[in-house]
Amino acid sequence: MEVAERDDGFVFTGDPRYYLAPLRAWWPQERRAMRFVRGRVLDVGCAAGRVGLHLEGRGHDVVGLDVSPGAVRIARQRGLRDVRLGTHRTALDADERFDTILLLGNNVGLLGGEREGRTLLRQLARLASPRGRLLAGSYDPYDGASEAARGYHERNRARGRLGGVERLRIRYRGYATPWFDALFASREELASIAEGSGWAVGAFVDEGAGYVAVLDRA
Amino acid sequence: MEVAERDDGFVFTGDPRYYLAPLRAWWPQERRAMRFVRGRVLDVGCAAGRVGLHLEGRGHDVVGLDVSPGAVRIARQRGLRDVRLGTHRTALDADERFDTILLLGNNVGLLGGEREGRTLLRQLARLASPRGRLLAGSYDPYDGASEAARGYHERNRARGRLGGVERLRIRYRGYATPWFDALFASREELASIAEGSGWAVGAFVDEGAGYVAVLDRA
Repeated sequence: MEVAERDDGFVFTGDPRYYLAPLRAWWPQERRAMRFVRGRVLDVGCAAGRVGLHLEGRGHDVVGLDVSPGAVRIARQRGLRDVRLGTHRTALDADERFDTILLLGNNVGLLGGEREGRTLLRQLARLASPRGRLLAGSYDPYDGASEAARGYHERNRARGRLGGVERLRIRYRGYATPWFDALFASREELASIAEGSGWAVGAFVDEGAGYVAVLDRA
Repeated sequence: MEVAERDDGFVFTGDPRYYLAPLRAWWPQERRAMRFVRGRVLDVGCAAGRVGLHLEGRGHDVVGLDVSPGAVRIARQRGLRDVRLGTHRTALDADERFDTILLLGNNVGLLGGEREGRTLLRQLARLASPRGRLLAGSYDPYDGASEAARGYHERNRARGRLGGVERLRIRYRGYATPWFDALFASREELASIAEGSGWAVGAFVDEGAGYVAVLDRA
């Protein structure tokens, strides 16, 4: 099991097999969000290529990006054709454009916070074709939050941060990532971050607290 | 999932449902060791009463000991009749004696190290009836050890400790135990610790690296 350690001492575990899961085993909202994919795809934080491989199989041209050399190696081994080590700022050619950009697997987390998130959304908008679309998955951290979670949210707000910014590191056996801020946003918060970013929420694919937001170029 | 964090930064996860598992789901060596149980039983570190409840159901008189108030509460709720909060030094009457003493669920870990382990075995021998028996479960930490594990063992030995002494704490959501030393011993190491303790190994119930040692009063 993969262990996510939060800066208040909480630990959460997740089954890393999700990174390899076939379509039928995905979270329902991600499965259902696939019908919104069109054209050339940029999979931001593609990990082992779970989503990218599915979309390549459906005939899409896919570029996968990941900052983890291990993830890039595995995604390539598994057959994803165009996987690049780095970020949208370092690993793309200046004129590359995409019809669909993916932030799935809770990769809304990469927004990190309100201001940084709007900056990232703006940068992604510049990579989108005129009919470009963004699929962004998260879950509402306030939906069914425990008392401990509510305390964490309150401490965030007292520091001027969105409630659902979690400072985490991922550990697995002897490995540990550096600490990073992952954003879990309510639907309203995500729509608010998108304002002025070049994107606007067109729809939500809902599954309880979990959702995939479908954003179109504003 | 329960997370065990080691002092070198390794994390390991385990399914806490094992604490509640019925006999058919136990590790095979523990299941097979049950035929060595006789008479009145002391279950040291009984947790939620996994083993104690099974033995009560088979007609044994069982005393469960645990230093965790939560474990004691749950074991009582699940029906274990005589569960006591504390250790063999604090929670037993002076004249109580047992025919079988259990250190299962890797509770050889409670020996902590060579010298402390011999002391604990001596104390347990004084609680045993003349035909008393001790069932002690562990796994051989050197069997199939990874390179990382071998490094950990070497560092232990360089400090004059048995290779398989792991400094651990257990974490679960927002909970964390203090750091403690848990001993994982090879069969030979366990037999050596038992020398002069009032116990001698009579048999091993083997299952690959895992085993339950059956010790009798020497």
